[in-house]
Amino acid sequence: MSDSQTFPPGAAYARGQYCAIADATLSVLDWGLLRSDATYDVAHCIDGRFFRLDAHLDRFYASAEKLRLDIPVAKADCAEIMRECVRRGGVGEAGYVECLITRGLSPTFSRDPRDAVPTFIVFAVPLGFILPRDRWDEGLHVHISGIRRIPPESVDPTAKNYHWHDLVQGLYAAYDAGAENVVLTDPAENICEGPGFNVFAVKDGRVLTPDRGVLRGISRDTALRLAAELGHETVEAPLPTATFRAADEAFITSTAGGIMPIARADDRPIGDGRPGPVTRALRDLYWEKHRDPAWTTPV
Amino acid sequence: MSDSQTFPPGAAYARGQYCAIADATLSVLDWGLLRSDATYDVAHCIDGRFFRLDAHLDRFYASAEKLRLDIPVAKADCAEIMRECVRRGGVGEAGYVECLITRGLSPTFSRDPRDAVPTFIVFAVPLGFILPRDRWDEGLHVHISGIRRIPPESVDPTAKNYHWHDLVQGLYAAYDAGAENVVLTDPAENICEGPGFNVFAVKDGRVLTPDRGVLRGISRDTALRLAAELGHETVEAPLPTATFRAADEAFITSTAGGIMPIARADDRPIGDGRPGPVTRALRDLYWEKHRDPAWTTPV
Repeated sequence: MSDSQTFPPGAAYARGQYCAIADATLSVLDWGLLRSDATYDVAHCIDGRFFRLDAHLDRFYASAEKLRLDIPVAKADCAEIMRECVRRGGVGEAGYVECLITRGLSPTFSRDPRDAVPTFIVFAVPLGFILPRDRWDEGLHVHISGIRRIPPESVDPTAKNYHWHDLVQGLYAAYDAGAENVVLTDPAENICEGPGFNVFAVKDGRVLTPDRGVLRGISRDTALRLAAELGHETVEAPLPTATFRAADEAFITSTAGGIMPIARADDRPIGDGRPGPVTRALRDLYWEKHRDPAWTTPV
Repeated sequence: MSDSQTFPPGAAYARGQYCAIADATLSVLDWGLLRSDATYDVAHCIDGRFFRLDAHLDRFYASAEKLRLDIPVAKADCAEIMRECVRRGGVGEAGYVECLITRGLSPTFSRDPRDAVPTFIVFAVPLGFILPRDRWDEGLHVHISGIRRIPPESVDPTAKNYHWHDLVQGLYAAYDAGAENVVLTDPAENICEGPGFNVFAVKDGRVLTPDRGVLRGISRDTALRLAAELGHETVEAPLPTATFRAADEAFITSTAGGIMPIARADDRPIGDGRPGPVTRALRDLYWEKHRDPAWTTPV
């Protein structure tokens, strides 16, 4: 099926069997495409160890239950499929491992979601970082967009979902504005989140992050725990854009790169425009935990 | 690729060639799935004739442009591909013909949408009606949901998209409430739309439909034109839920069935709970236009 398409390295599990990444497909009639009716989770592995795999699995199964999607395998089997995809894909050194379930396909193309048979897919590809490692001393340049993150009154952000239209259009707005990534807001001009990451600010040693209208990221949770471990007060509360712009430091959290500094918001630096001491300490501790058996499990 | 999956009749065009509907697939790495970064349009044909095909094509290309998606074929070629899918699928009697474009696949699994190569697919399957023809004298029983339709400040509803999470969760809420379909609202308790349809009310001979936060449906446009042709005043304006519940008549419009009556909203009838004269006249005129060369083109 790959034809003229080029694929990254990796391996997948689809239609009940392991396959090459190029063969991991789903029908164009799948509700995962035609309704974005799906949920997913992504874990990462580094040096042959998954980071907080159980937390990702717990969230994946909880998200599916919220959306009335039945994952066709038990949690332990899902973990084993993720491991096997990493092994087959040869990405144990640094792997991005996504499991997803969609409403699936209705044999009659019925418009009733209860008629559909769910689609379950797992794939493992090389782990990419939102901010590449060689730019960690520099930091990310974000645009703060007037596009409003899809509100929780419409789509529950705690069930991880593919409703990224606003985020992708925000990325294009960021490129237009000369920035490299985007942070969306809510109608009260509070900071929400960006494409695949949560947002944090640091002010007077306190670590702040939005509490509403955002994914409850596992990396977000990790950052909050590590901040507490380092003795910082952590605050989950609305984060006004003005507060964010005036922060001493700012960073993002994501499975795709962990804890990464924000250096600029639009045409102004955050703090002195360089990654600050709290961000750096959190980042170092984050990677230290990747060697800690309490936080990791072997592939 | 079909394995244990069962598919409706039909035919498709994917990866630059015609194929069986079971073989019309896309990669699990496609941004159409992983970001719901896509747009689409659906035309229907009846008795060997497309209804308002040009209007659907115009909207499809306009939607793609809004999202910065380049459709890889010219409009006339797209029309010809749609025709050929209908012929190959044998659904000219009553066909549902969808063309879609996604951001596509990034060969490196890059997080930058500009690196992706778009995916263009067309498929034709049998036309299904939201309210089956044998229930047109009965009417639809809808639930009016407190789930808020994704607002235009987040996702432009005029670029037809697959952001249906709210609509599908609304369907489940409707089933729980004993209804068969759902209408979502906005935070001001105005009526928005349902899964794949616009909503109309008729009060004292005036034909009312929401003007904001809804798809600019081709069938919606058709209903407005036909209402004018029948001498009704038409009003595109916010439609409060209370006004809707107190309407003389109500109906939905969709490519999937045209103009179909609403009989009940939650536990109360609309009007006398039976399809009213304005709805019936519009419906009859709608199907009459399907034989009019001014509104149709041959497959």
